[in-house]
Amino acid sequence: MNSLTDVLDGRWGDIRRDIRAQVADAKFREPIGLGVEEHRAQVLEQLQELAKTGRPRLGFPEEYGGSGDIGGSVVSFEMLGLGDLSLMVKAGVQWGLFGGAVELLGTREHHERLLRPIMDLDLPGCFAMTESGHGSDVQHLRTTATYDPDAREFVVETPDAGARKDYIGNAARDGRMAVVFAQLVTKGESRGVHAFLVPIRDEDGNPMPGVRIEDCGPKAGLNGVDNGRLWFDRVRIPRTSLLNRYGDVAEDGTYSSPIESDGRRFFTMLGTLVRGRISVAGSAGSATKRALTIAVRYGEKRRQFRRPGETDEVVVLDYLAHQRKLLPALATTYALHFAQEELVASLHELQSGGEPDEIRQRELESRAAGLKAVSTWHATSTIQAAREACGGAGYLAENILPALKADTDVFTTFEGDNTVLLQLVAKGLLTSYKDQFQDLSPLATARFVAEQFVGAVIERTAARKVVERIIDASPGRDDDDVLFDRAWQLKLFEDREAHVLDGVARRLRQATEENAFEVFNAAQDHVLRAGRVHVDRMVLEAFVAAVDRCEDGETKDLLSRVCDLYVLANIEADRAWFLEHGRLTSPRGKAVVAAVNDLCRELRPHARTLVDAFAIPEQFLSAPIISE
Amino acid sequence: MNSLTDVLDGRWGDIRRDIRAQVADAKFREPIGLGVEEHRAQVLEQLQELAKTGRPRLGFPEEYGGSGDIGGSVVSFEMLGLGDLSLMVKAGVQWGLFGGAVELLGTREHHERLLRPIMDLDLPGCFAMTESGHGSDVQHLRTTATYDPDAREFVVETPDAGARKDYIGNAARDGRMAVVFAQLVTKGESRGVHAFLVPIRDEDGNPMPGVRIEDCGPKAGLNGVDNGRLWFDRVRIPRTSLLNRYGDVAEDGTYSSPIESDGRRFFTMLGTLVRGRISVAGSAGSATKRALTIAVRYGEKRRQFRRPGETDEVVVLDYLAHQRKLLPALATTYALHFAQEELVASLHELQSGGEPDEIRQRELESRAAGLKAVSTWHATSTIQAAREACGGAGYLAENILPALKADTDVFTTFEGDNTVLLQLVAKGLLTSYKDQFQDLSPLATARFVAEQFVGAVIERTAARKVVERIIDASPGRDDDDVLFDRAWQLKLFEDREAHVLDGVARRLRQATEENAFEVFNAAQDHVLRAGRVHVDRMVLEAFVAAVDRCEDGETKDLLSRVCDLYVLANIEADRAWFLEHGRLTSPRGKAVVAAVNDLCRELRPHARTLVDAFAIPEQFLSAPIISE
Repeated sequence: MNSLTDVLDGRWGDIRRDIRAQVADAKFREPIGLGVEEHRAQVLEQLQELAKTGRPRLGFPEEYGGSGDIGGSVVSFEMLGLGDLSLMVKAGVQWGLFGGAVELLGTREHHERLLRPIMDLDLPGCFAMTESGHGSDVQHLRTTATYDPDAREFVVETPDAGARKDYIGNAARDGRMAVVFAQLVTKGESRGVHAFLVPIRDEDGNPMPGVRIEDCGPKAGLNGVDNGRLWFDRVRIPRTSLLNRYGDVAEDGTYSSPIESDGRRFFTMLGTLVRGRISVAGSAGSATKRALTIAVRYGEKRRQFRRPGETDEVVVLDYLAHQRKLLPALATTYALHFAQEELVASLHELQSGGEPDEIRQRELESRAAGLKAVSTWHATSTIQAAREACGGAGYLAENILPALKADTDVFTTFEGDNTVLLQLVAKGLLTSYKDQFQDLSPLATARFVAEQFVGAVIERTAARKVVERIIDASPGRDDDDVLFDRAWQLKLFEDREAHVLDGVARRLRQATEENAFEVFNAAQDHVLRAGRVHVDRMVLEAFVAAVDRCEDGETKDLLSRVCDLYVLANIEADRAWFLEHGRLTSPRGKAVVAAVNDLCRELRPHARTLVDAFAIPEQFLSAPIISE
Repeated sequence: MNSLTDVLDGRWGDIRRDIRAQVADAKFREPIGLGVEEHRAQVLEQLQELAKTGRPRLGFPEEYGGSGDIGGSVVSFEMLGLGDLSLMVKAGVQWGLFGGAVELLGTREHHERLLRPIMDLDLPGCFAMTESGHGSDVQHLRTTATYDPDAREFVVETPDAGARKDYIGNAARDGRMAVVFAQLVTKGESRGVHAFLVPIRDEDGNPMPGVRIEDCGPKAGLNGVDNGRLWFDRVRIPRTSLLNRYGDVAEDGTYSSPIESDGRRFFTMLGTLVRGRISVAGSAGSATKRALTIAVRYGEKRRQFRRPGETDEVVVLDYLAHQRKLLPALATTYALHFAQEELVASLHELQSGGEPDEIRQRELESRAAGLKAVSTWHATSTIQAAREACGGAGYLAENILPALKADTDVFTTFEGDNTVLLQLVAKGLLTSYKDQFQDLSPLATARFVAEQFVGAVIERTAARKVVERIIDASPGRDDDDVLFDRAWQLKLFEDREAHVLDGVARRLRQATEENAFEVFNAAQDHVLRAGRVHVDRMVLEAFVAAVDRCEDGETKDLLSRVCDLYVLANIEADRAWFLEHGRLTSPRGKAVVAAVNDLCRELRPHARTLVDAFAIPEQFLSAPIISE
């Protein structure tokens, strides 16, 4: 069913098709049974091959040899997620994080000197932000870069054990330079976290003087990526090593910045790096699609237990319990795909044209945070279900699922811990984008909410117009078929979000200077829920808009049923809330459960079509359980 | 808090303490960073060390040099689960499955010849039941063992690709003999699945003539276990190689058995092997305890984000969201521990004294199936939560969680797929233990239910007396404190089970010869739910009985609050059902959520005490994140 693939491929369909064709030629080897060092070597080799294609250039500016296609760049990371995820992550470190930091936090001199060697992989680099003691609260990193006006140099220092840089990709083996995030100190004053270029290895691969490097060793997954730890013992770097787009130090040590507040400046700097988070969400989606494709194909092939009166055994995907494991997850994967596509489009629009509008930038960051959290948790649970649905065969490395599971596991806590990210989403909704927006301290949150909560913010997403049209056109109804009424579904999600947000705001308004932490902490589960239901609404709207723009009638009908399954499975999982808040009656609650079962049965014959539409190149599906 | 450990250690406390002391001396190495072959070699070496201790002898009869302590034997497998789970599984294959099959399915001649070399590991063996084509539906295995009266031999044959033996532990490298499950054919008639002793390797480790062996290769985890595949090409074995306790073939080929029905005979044979399933549940619990101990200790040490007005950052376990990740899971781990202890005691009573009562044996099998399913799913989700609660550090192999996660993953589908096991539980409840009890075909289920459903069966567990006393003594109340009233909690769980079972029975009664499969399949989620809520009730009762027998007042109070958290978190997760069925009002549903939050806050200061009470030897907790 070509047309379903077309709908999924969307705006960057050309890039997706090109990559599929390229990949079909390339030698791709599953890293099954490789030791850590062999795996790292294989991934570096693949990274070098990748550097020869144009893809790493996609996201960089045309004046330095790039293609300036930001959306295309993110989509190409997403497509890399169909293969060995170590390669995706290593490419993300090199071109997304390291290259992205140089591009977005540096200025012309840095661009001219570094972007080409970065794109060509002549300068392998690291993104050294996280420290052992600070992962989520990166505003309080402890590494320092103190300006010495006499030498016109910064002195980079790891002041204590907790300040070592930790889990840094590309550090243990291959990186030669690192973008190091450190507290900038000049004239005895700290100016907050800034990014500095620090050479960590010489041409021969030996650590630079004063730099200590340690290997993080084997990990649960992603063992093709060489994560390491870095310590700096009074390492001197030239003044111009400061990536100085958002803050600079003159030769005499005078600090200047276009943004006055240290906090706001730092979060503006962080915000420019939002692509990384979006790419993680996208590749989590790719891994999920691959796992579902394997599990569905196996589920159509595997037979167990005879049906009375028949000699053939029953295909396991014909069992309701098996459908329940896979089909709602498949529907959610479709939903997240369309939400991702819309997010990438927003990113593209925003970053393609000059200095972005600040409010839209923060909306984008909030949506990226939320979708990353929801997509990566969805990946973890779906890949787990896919593994279980393949039984013992799913546990064998040769059948790919073990690597998918182990590799994506860390997605839920890297590039932002999901729990922290959902809080950030909720906070964004509550504080209507004031200055301290991203300062996550409970006091700041509670205070802002107390002062100026203005109700749920509906962002200007592309989907909103479609949603409003559908809601306006709905006659309103109240029979049991209402469950399948798109306007009813949309209003239910909208209403849930508004109600939850309103409740959180009411609780947080009780905060005073003295009890702010306690009030915030007591409501933390409620705050997280607000973030979650907001993302759910956003995801549904993107799915609805995708169904709406689908032109082929048959495809549209199928997609519409998949959308129903996404909605109703979501309501089913959360129906305690709907019941408690009078949004569903008991009989209708039960009707939701029955409707999910009905939809599973109805979509069962289309399961193969739905996974085939992901058009995953066959070489990424070389699992003996589905090919033998 | 010694006394809490005493309560947990329970009836086999001496064995637990002995093992802790033994283990403290033994060299235990985490298998971090080992390749598959190195890991296998290390585990074999540890297995040989283990053979020198008395522990493998615990479960075998005294007349052959064993200790005849069946409960103690299962507890010792549970304790092995605190270390490298590959060793636990390999020991389980050798002494539990292989040795257990010889003991329980064989007769005196087999015992005299084989039990000593098995206990001493002079004869490493395999348990070759699963085939590529049949994992859950083992009654329909396709390997054949055809009796040849002229040669007085059985001819063992793999008739097709799907009949190869698959995932067989100990087969790829070390096993010399296998207990092979095959369809016994004599005088042209098939008599169902029986177990046969088949040598697979000679003294030098070469495959025996006609036996083909293949390595399953690397797996998601448990790489210290050498799983393999076996094919038999007309392999001849003596007539006496049939493990003939439940069925025998005379020299002339005449078949005889104390049990007439082929199906019933097979499930009786399977039933004797229930220890394996119980041991898996126990070691899943051990791995869960280890993960929680690491995560709680880290959660008390790790700080992130400042509290307003303070310089120290907040300990992450002080955050409600973090407590929510770990404490309800910790409470459930306690609950499952006590349910496991009770299950082991039942097994011990039943298998220690002669031929067991058939009904009690089937009750035991049903409880073992249910607890195995619930415990292993709980392990998977809790270890996942523990990993996420430790962030990037939790992803490093040195911090143990990756191995716990990868190793326990397969527990949900081996020794019985959890989904199939829960169905078996439900079926047991519905069919009141008739002959076809374990025949899982939908027709049989539906038919039996239609004919003779007799209402929920309350088994005679040790906990029941305590439960009835508590319920009888309750005055009955209806304020919000009722949530903490033990009698109310118990009645709620009992009532849920009865109602769900009743509903399932009503649906299945509609089955006719023609629509049996459809009726059963449409209700499959309902059937699984019946199994699940039954197990939940059983687990709660075991927990309540444990609190009841606790003598120290302070310990008892703490345990009682942990029990409250178990109950209320369970109700919270399932409160849609309670609301839909009028068992909770909306305000009380919300009160349950608030109570879980309150209990998290209240138990937070005791979190360390609660994990320390597991008394896990420190060498199993050598994770740098909690020791550095």
